[in-house]
Amino acid sequence: MKKLLYALMLMIASSAARAAIHTETVDYQQAGTTLEGYLAYDDALTGKRPGVLVVHQWKGLGDYEKKRAEMLAQLGYVAFCADIYGKGVRPATFAEAGAVSGKYKSDRALLRLRVNAGLDTLKKNERVDISHVAAIGYCFGGTTVLELARSGADLAGVVSFHGGLDSPAPADGKNIKCKVLCCHGADDPFEKPADLAAFQSEMRNAGVDWRLYEYGGAVHAFTDWTATGSLSGAKYNERADHRSWADMKQFFAEIFN
Amino acid sequence: MKKLLYALMLMIASSAARAAIHTETVDYQQAGTTLEGYLAYDDALTGKRPGVLVVHQWKGLGDYEKKRAEMLAQLGYVAFCADIYGKGVRPATFAEAGAVSGKYKSDRALLRLRVNAGLDTLKKNERVDISHVAAIGYCFGGTTVLELARSGADLAGVVSFHGGLDSPAPADGKNIKCKVLCCHGADDPFEKPADLAAFQSEMRNAGVDWRLYEYGGAVHAFTDWTATGSLSGAKYNERADHRSWADMKQFFAEIFN
Repeated sequence: MKKLLYALMLMIASSAARAAIHTETVDYQQAGTTLEGYLAYDDALTGKRPGVLVVHQWKGLGDYEKKRAEMLAQLGYVAFCADIYGKGVRPATFAEAGAVSGKYKSDRALLRLRVNAGLDTLKKNERVDISHVAAIGYCFGGTTVLELARSGADLAGVVSFHGGLDSPAPADGKNIKCKVLCCHGADDPFEKPADLAAFQSEMRNAGVDWRLYEYGGAVHAFTDWTATGSLSGAKYNERADHRSWADMKQFFAEIFN
Repeated sequence: MKKLLYALMLMIASSAARAAIHTETVDYQQAGTTLEGYLAYDDALTGKRPGVLVVHQWKGLGDYEKKRAEMLAQLGYVAFCADIYGKGVRPATFAEAGAVSGKYKSDRALLRLRVNAGLDTLKKNERVDISHVAAIGYCFGGTTVLELARSGADLAGVVSFHGGLDSPAPADGKNIKCKVLCCHGADDPFEKPADLAAFQSEMRNAGVDWRLYEYGGAVHAFTDWTATGSLSGAKYNERADHRSWADMKQFFAEIFN
């Protein structure tokens, strides 16, 4: 019955010239650090609905992730963009982004605390059906949602888009309770065959319900319409973007069933 | 407009307690050899519609592939099961199946002729819109539809389910005109990492529009509900079966657009 209701809700939401997407900036805390997230939902809908956490790329929460949250709201979900770095921390250059993201990649414990703070904030939203929650992330955010899963967080599924799949503690795969979809550019030069193989071993050894979808012709950042190729090996690919978005929707249809 | 018509047709077809699936055995020829195929379509539908060729596993065309054709007919397509081996050639044991399939795997020229004969038979069907034709294959049939693509055949796409992806002539990838989806069991012991890597190189070097979807926990033959595991490493996996079928439908929605 819930399945039917959601299907109907999504049909209504996506027929939606009339959809009114409400957005707002939301401050929240993790151990005394203020984080600045971004909430989006369709306020023409009533009642509880699935919630989706969105985790940003290496430059921090920006217009790209906000647009993704609005797209998710248009699909009928409550979307919340986490802020991993902290309010006002928005690296402007590749070098700064590398330094800030590197700090969290090197401190997975802190990364897990930060992303769980975002998940908790989403779950506290009165519109969210907490039994139907997922997290998606792009690039650094892809790595982050996998860490969220590895932290043992209680959610239905995670989707990594061109995320780094490596883990310093592969045994933590055993903590994963949710389903995992990795959408990967088959020509991504930042992800080595050995990293892919290690990720698969981690999932396999832990008995995770996982899948890895590789898109031919796509490099790193293939979903990011702002990625012009100015960083070598990172470029938008419309075809792979549309396919992976459709694959995510299909994944949601399964896990929010 | 065609897109809308197909969408409507598929909605009608899938609402279909009333669907009447017509099936028939069809004899056809390849260079003097009689082949025995199997046709299925919904005869409650009128007009031309996309056509899907289905290529069998290593034991030859049997009930499994016929059922798949009927499932495709229920989706609104004209489905035709090719017979690669020849009328009456239906190996009963694994050993016989290995010998017969091995003959064709070692003679890719003959394999291409045989599968193209099936494609031609499908295209000649008056119900088929020849600008919207795909081929799918299981196991040996997965290898075969990739050879069909490598032969330069004119069709919109091919889907391999747990097919062998190796090629004795990787340069033939350049002949591929259609889109390629490989649905692969991530734990398939018959497909070595080196074969997967070689396939990806073939696709990449030839500039093919390809994707490779790997399903965690699935071994060889994961879509085949008759695969009990009596052959080690080959076993049905309902979860991966349903997911790969959904992925195929999404692929069709794209290529029959």
